[in-house]
Amino acid sequence: MLIETLTRDSGDQIAAHLRSQGARFHRVNEYIVASGKPDLPVGDFIVHDVRAPYPLVSRELKPPGSVVEAAGVRFGRGSFPVIAGPCSVESEEQILRSAEAVAKAGGSMLRGGAFKPRTSPYDFQGLGEEGLQLLAKAREETGLPIVTEVLAEADVCMVAAYADMLQVGARNMQNYALLKALGKAGRPVLLKRGLSATLKEFLMAAEYVVAHGNSDVILCERGIRTFEQHTRNTCDIAAVPALQELTHLPVVLDPSHATGRRSLITPLARAAVAIGANGLLVEMHPEPEKAWSDGEQSLDCGEFEAMMADIKPYVELRQSSILKV
Amino acid sequence: MLIETLTRDSGDQIAAHLRSQGARFHRVNEYIVASGKPDLPVGDFIVHDVRAPYPLVSRELKPPGSVVEAAGVRFGRGSFPVIAGPCSVESEEQILRSAEAVAKAGGSMLRGGAFKPRTSPYDFQGLGEEGLQLLAKAREETGLPIVTEVLAEADVCMVAAYADMLQVGARNMQNYALLKALGKAGRPVLLKRGLSATLKEFLMAAEYVVAHGNSDVILCERGIRTFEQHTRNTCDIAAVPALQELTHLPVVLDPSHATGRRSLITPLARAAVAIGANGLLVEMHPEPEKAWSDGEQSLDCGEFEAMMADIKPYVELRQSSILKV
Amino acid sequence: MLIETLTRDSGDQIAAHLRSQGARFHRVNEYIVASGKPDLPVGDFIVHDVRAPYPLVSRELKPPGSVVEAAGVRFGRGSFPVIAGPCSVESEEQILRSAEAVAKAGGSMLRGGAFKPRTSPYDFQGLGEEGLQLLAKAREETGLPIVTEVLAEADVCMVAAYADMLQVGARNMQNYALLKALGKAGRPVLLKRGLSATLKEFLMAAEYVVAHGNSDVILCERGIRTFEQHTRNTCDIAAVPALQELTHLPVVLDPSHATGRRSLITPLARAAVAIGANGLLVEMHPEPEKAWSDGEQSLDCGEFEAMMADIKPYVELRQSSILKV
Amino acid sequence: MLIETLTRDSGDQIAAHLRSQGARFHRVNEYIVASGKPDLPVGDFIVHDVRAPYPLVSRELKPPGSVVEAAGVRFGRGSFPVIAGPCSVESEEQILRSAEAVAKAGGSMLRGGAFKPRTSPYDFQGLGEEGLQLLAKAREETGLPIVTEVLAEADVCMVAAYADMLQVGARNMQNYALLKALGKAGRPVLLKRGLSATLKEFLMAAEYVVAHGNSDVILCERGIRTFEQHTRNTCDIAAVPALQELTHLPVVLDPSHATGRRSLITPLARAAVAIGANGLLVEMHPEPEKAWSDGEQSLDCGEFEAMMADIKPYVELRQSSILKV
Repeated sequence: MLIETLTRDSGDQIAAHLRSQGARFHRVNEYIVASGKPDLPVGDFIVHDVRAPYPLVSRELKPPGSVVEAAGVRFGRGSFPVIAGPCSVESEEQILRSAEAVAKAGGSMLRGGAFKPRTSPYDFQGLGEEGLQLLAKAREETGLPIVTEVLAEADVCMVAAYADMLQVGARNMQNYALLKALGKAGRPVLLKRGLSATLKEFLMAAEYVVAHGNSDVILCERGIRTFEQHTRNTCDIAAVPALQELTHLPVVLDPSHATGRRSLITPLARAAVAIGANGLLVEMHPEPEKAWSDGEQSLDCGEFEAMMADIKPYVELRQSSILKV
Repeated sequence: MLIETLTRDSGDQIAAHLRSQGARFHRVNEYIVASGKPDLPVGDFIVHDVRAPYPLVSRELKPPGSVVEAAGVRFGRGSFPVIAGPCSVESEEQILRSAEAVAKAGGSMLRGGAFKPRTSPYDFQGLGEEGLQLLAKAREETGLPIVTEVLAEADVCMVAAYADMLQVGARNMQNYALLKALGKAGRPVLLKRGLSATLKEFLMAAEYVVAHGNSDVILCERGIRTFEQHTRNTCDIAAVPALQELTHLPVVLDPSHATGRRSLITPLARAAVAIGANGLLVEMHPEPEKAWSDGEQSLDCGEFEAMMADIKPYVELRQSSILKV
Repeated sequence: MLIETLTRDSGDQIAAHLRSQGARFHRVNEYIVASGKPDLPVGDFIVHDVRAPYPLVSRELKPPGSVVEAAGVRFGRGSFPVIAGPCSVESEEQILRSAEAVAKAGGSMLRGGAFKPRTSPYDFQGLGEEGLQLLAKAREETGLPIVTEVLAEADVCMVAAYADMLQVGARNMQNYALLKALGKAGRPVLLKRGLSATLKEFLMAAEYVVAHGNSDVILCERGIRTFEQHTRNTCDIAAVPALQELTHLPVVLDPSHATGRRSLITPLARAAVAIGANGLLVEMHPEPEKAWSDGEQSLDCGEFEAMMADIKPYVELRQSSILKV
Repeated sequence: MLIETLTRDSGDQIAAHLRSQGARFHRVNEYIVASGKPDLPVGDFIVHDVRAPYPLVSRELKPPGSVVEAAGVRFGRGSFPVIAGPCSVESEEQILRSAEAVAKAGGSMLRGGAFKPRTSPYDFQGLGEEGLQLLAKAREETGLPIVTEVLAEADVCMVAAYADMLQVGARNMQNYALLKALGKAGRPVLLKRGLSATLKEFLMAAEYVVAHGNSDVILCERGIRTFEQHTRNTCDIAAVPALQELTHLPVVLDPSHATGRRSLITPLARAAVAIGANGLLVEMHPEPEKAWSDGEQSLDCGEFEAMMADIKPYVELRQSSILKV
C-alpha cells in the first residue's frame, strides 16, 4: 500500500499507528510504503492504488511522467538533452576540448569518468579527484553541467561536491550500498541498466534510490548482454517505451555502449529520438584513436557535430508532433 | 575467391579449368565461388576481392545496395514499403477485411500465414492451400501482392504458385533443405532472423538461398531471444544498420514479433524508419482479440491506420534527407 | 484431455462421438488428445489427468519412465549406452576405424553424419547416400547399430532404410514438417535441443513426433547458446533431471557440442553419469586434427577409450545405487 | 610481465628500476606485474612467462593448483568441503538448528546471510551485525567456521571481525571498490560469478582481490542468466573444469542458486563431485517453507543429510581415483 501524507504531522501519526500495529512500513519524504493493506486512522493522506512492486517510481503514481532537472537541464516530457564527452577524463586539454565541442554542437551536459570501473586491475583506474577538478574547470569554461560516475559509497560525498549529476554504471546497478548512499546524495542520479538486468530489476534499483530519499533518477538503457558478438551489447530499444509505460522517470539511451561501434551511433541516436527517448548519453573524444578507453565507440568532435545535425530534424519533428497532441 | 563471369562461355571455361585442377568451387548464375586463390585462364571475367564468408550477399560486392522487387514493390535504398496482415489466414471475410484495411492505410503488401509453425502439434496449423487461395482472392480484390510463409521444401512449388514473396520463419532460418529449395523457387524470399542467430549466421543463411540461384532475398530482424521476459523478444535494432554495412540486401523490421506487445509496435516502427530500415512487417487483424494466434501483438485496422499516419512524417523526413545527400 | 482407448473399436467410437459434437481432437495410436473436457460415451477407455501441454510425452502419463530401444540398445531407466563416432562420415577407412574403436571401448552405437547442416553453403555438405552405405558397412563389420542425422523430410525414407535411429539436429528442432515425417518413419528418433529452445519447447517438439505416430523419442541436451564464448555452448546439465521430472522419455547428453573443447568432454561425461543422464553422444575421430568438421571437439580413439574407462566406475556406482533403491 | 621477487630487497630494487624508467607496474606481495617486457637489473627474481591477462590467478603460475584454507577447512586439490546453511540468518534458534544439522551431516562450514542484497528495498535486508553475532554463536556451539556475505566496502572490517570467510555475491562481482577492500581484509574470499559474467571477467574479478593483497580466493559457479525460465539460472557446469584449466584457484559450485529448485539440488551436487568441483555451497533451512528468502531452493535438515549420504560414494570414488593417479 502506498500512502501519501499531506502534512508532516499526518505522516508521523500514520507511522506511529503502523508501528503500534507491528506493521512493516518504509517512510520516505511524503510517502509511506506499507506491507499489505492496514487500516489507517482518519487524517490528511491519500492512498494510491499502485500494483507495481516499485510504487514510488511506477507510472501509476505520476501518469504524466516526471521531469528531472540537473543544474537547469530538464529531462522528461518533450525535451531531448544530449549528454556527451569522453569515457575517461585524461588531461586538462582533453576535457576542455571535449567540453567546447559538446557546447558548440549544442550538447546539454558534459560527461567524463574520473573513477573508472575497469575489468582489469592493471588498467587505468581514472584520475580520481583530480579528474573531478578538471571536469569542474570544464564546466566553468563552457557552462555545461557535468555528470560523472561514482563507484563507491565512500566517494559519494566527494563526487557530489563536484558533479551536477551522479552516474551509476551498469556493473553497479545492484550495488545496494551505493544506491542507498545515493538516496542521500542531494544530486540527481543517472542509473544505467545492468548487463543482464530485467526491466523489473532495473526499476527496483531505481526504487532503492527513491526509497532512500532521492526522487531525481534518470534511467539509461545502454544495451544488454546477449550471444551476439558483432556489437558490444544488444540495444534493447523497445525497453525505452516499455519503461515509459511502467515508470514516470525519464529514460535516456546510450548508443555508444549499446553498440560499441562508432558507425552505428548516429543511426541509433536517430532511432532513440523517434522512439521517444528522453535524451542521449554519447561518448565523444577529440582524438578517439588516442583515447585511453572506449575509443572505438567514441565520435570525434566533427562526427559529434554531424550527429547533432543529423538528429535535429527528428527532434523537431517529434516536438511538433507532441505540440499537435 | 569470387569470380564474375561476363559471358556464359567464360563461365564454362573457368569451371572446366578449376575442375581440371581439382579445385573446389561453386557456380551460381554469373558467379563462381572458388576455394583459395587458384590461377585463372585469360578471359572475360572479373575477380572480386571479397573477404566476407558470404561473398554473394556481402556489401563489398554491391556497395550501393540492391533493390529487391516483389510484384512491383521495391525494397532497398530510399523506399519504405509496409507489409501488413494477420498472423494466420482464418476466413475469407477476415483476410479480405485485412487486405482492404492494409490497402486503405497505404500498405504495400499483404501478409498472412496459410502454413503455421506452431509450438504445439494440437494448435491450429493453418488452412493450407485453402488459405493460399484466400490470399490470392484478397490480392485480386485489392491489388496488393502477397507474402506468406513456406514451412517445408515439399510445399515450395505450391506456395510459389500463389504468393509473390515467400517467407522463411525464424525457426527455419537454418533449415538448409528449405533454403536450397528456395534458391530455385522463382520468387523473392523474406528471410527472418533465427531466435538466437548471430548476424553472420543470418547472412550465411541468405547466402544459401543466393548460392542456390535466387538473388532476391530480403532480411527481416524480428527480435532475438534473451533473458528479458517483459517483451516477447528483444529487438536488436542496431542489427539493421550493422547488416546494411555487411550486406547489399534490404533489411526490414518486424515490430510485432520483436515486442509481442501492441502498445510498443508504433514507437518501434518509427524507430525503424529513423534508423534506416528498408521496410516493415506488421501484424494487423480486424479483430485482434478474436485472432486465432498472436492477437496480443496485432494492431486493429484503426490502429494500423494510425501507425501509418504516425510514421509518415518520419518517412518523408528520411526521404528528404536522402535527396539532400 | 488425454484419453487412452483400450480397443480399436472404442477409439473409433470416441472419435465419432467427438466429431459429432464438433470437438477438436487429435488421434494417435491408442490415444486421443481432445480440447477441453468433453463428455464421453460409456466404453473401454481411461482418461488420464495430465496437465502438461505435452500430454503424450509427459511424465504424468508414464511415471516409471519409458525405455526406448534402437536395434537392441536400450535407453532409459538404469542403462547407460554411449553413442560415439565422427561428426561426418568422410571415407570407408575413417568410418570403419571409428566403428572399431567405438566397439572396442564398449560403445553401444555408432554415430556419423552423411547429411551435414553446415553454416556455409560452400562447406562440405556430407557424402549423402554414399555416407549411409559406409555406415551400414561399419555396422556389418562391428555389429554396432547406427544413428545419423536427417535434414529434410524428403530424405526420411532413404535415411530410415539405412539407419537404426534418426537424429534431428539442433537447428531443426522446430522444423515441424520434418518432425511430422518422423512420426511415420518407423525408427526411433534422437531429438537434439535447439540452440535457444526452452525445455517446454523441446518437449513440444518431441510431442510433435509422438503425436504423429512415433513414440520412440530420445531427448539430447547438447548445450544452449549464451553470452559465454569460452565454450562453444553452455551445457545446461540441470536440464537432464529437470526433463526427467517432466517427461518419461530418456535424456542423453552430448558433451562434445556442449563444450566444443576436447579437454572438457570427459569431465562432463562423468557429470552426466552422476546426474542421471540416460546415455551419451560423443564425437570421436581416428585423427581429430584431420577431421573435416568439429575436430577440436572430438576425442581420438585412445582418448575415447580413456573416457570410457574413466566413467566406468561412476556408471557402476550409479547402477549399484539404483539396485539398492 | 610477471616478476616474482625472492627477497624484499630485490622487490624494492626492481620497483625503483621500473619507476626510474617510467614503466607502469603493480606491486603485490612478492609479485610485480609490469606492462610490456622491461629490461631488469640483475638480482633475486624469477620472471614467469604468463600470457593470461590475470597473471596472479592463472594456472600457469601454479600448475598444481592452490589450496585455500579457511579456519582449517581446506579447499583445493582432493578435498571436497560442503558449505551449507540458510539464505538469511533469521533468529538464534534458526541458525543454531541449521548449524547443528550441517555439523551432524558432515558439512564443513556454515553459511548464512546477515547483510542481504535484496531486489526490493522493502524486503528484509538482513539482521546486520546481530546476524553476525548469531553466526559467531553458532560457530561456538558447533565448531563450524562461518562464511557470510559482505555487501559494502564500509562493512568489510566489521564482517571480517566475525566471519572466517567473506562472500561476494553475484551482483557485486564487479564492485571494484569492494574487491579492493577485500584485498586487505585478512580473510579468504568466496567470489560468486556474476549473472552474466564471462569466465574471463570472473577471473579478472578474482585478480582484483589478489592484486590488492589477498591471495586466498575461492571461485563459485552459481548459474548464469539465460532465456531458460524453468530453472532460476542455468548452471554452467562445464565452467568448473574450464576454470580449473585457467586458474589455480579452487572452484566450488552452488546448486541451490544454479537451479532454484529443491528437487534438482542433489543430482547437481553429484554432478559437481563427478566433474571435479572443489566443494559445494548449499542452501539448507530447518523449515524451508517458512524461510524469509529462498525457501524453494533450500533443503531441509533431512534432505541435506540425504544429499550428503547420496554424494558420499561419489566423493570417495573421486578420491580413490585421485590416489591412483
